[in-house]
Amino acid sequence: MTKAHDPTLAAIGKNVKRIRRASGKTQEGLALEAEIDRTYVSQIERGIANPSVLVLRKVAFCLGATLSEIVAGA
Amino acid sequence: MTKAHDPTLAAIGKNVKRIRRASGKTQEGLALEAEIDRTYVSQIERGIANPSVLVLRKVAFCLGATLSEIVAGA
Repeated sequence: MTKAHDPTLAAIGKNVKRIRRASGKTQEGLALEAEIDRTYVSQIERGIANPSVLVLRKVAFCLGATLSEIVAGA
Repeated sequence: MTKAHDPTLAAIGKNVKRIRRASGKTQEGLALEAEIDRTYVSQIERGIANPSVLVLRKVAFCLGATLSEIVAGA
């Protein structure tokens, strides 16, 4: 399900992208570690996916971040 | 999908319950406002539902809280 231009999802996506880049991981690397599809990582970062808590936690864990950091400002 | 004993979902559930009670709302009142099923509110509070970002945001909004408050410590 895509949710174009949702500000909450967009803010979470920007956080994931920033934290992922800071960690030196690629979308593909993160996807492999988190066991989710690379296109889903891309959708999360673009704010057009509506991920569940457990998906976000897995992403956070793989990036060495907390769920709070992932949703900061969202 | 139930996720018994997941610490992240349990922490979020406790936050929702605490904030909902502080707001004076019942599970049913919150469910009606957030347009989700009352049993789903109950499942979230018990930490056995894995809600999406947009469901949690709706819950937060109806409780006058932020997403960050909902996931605090999770």
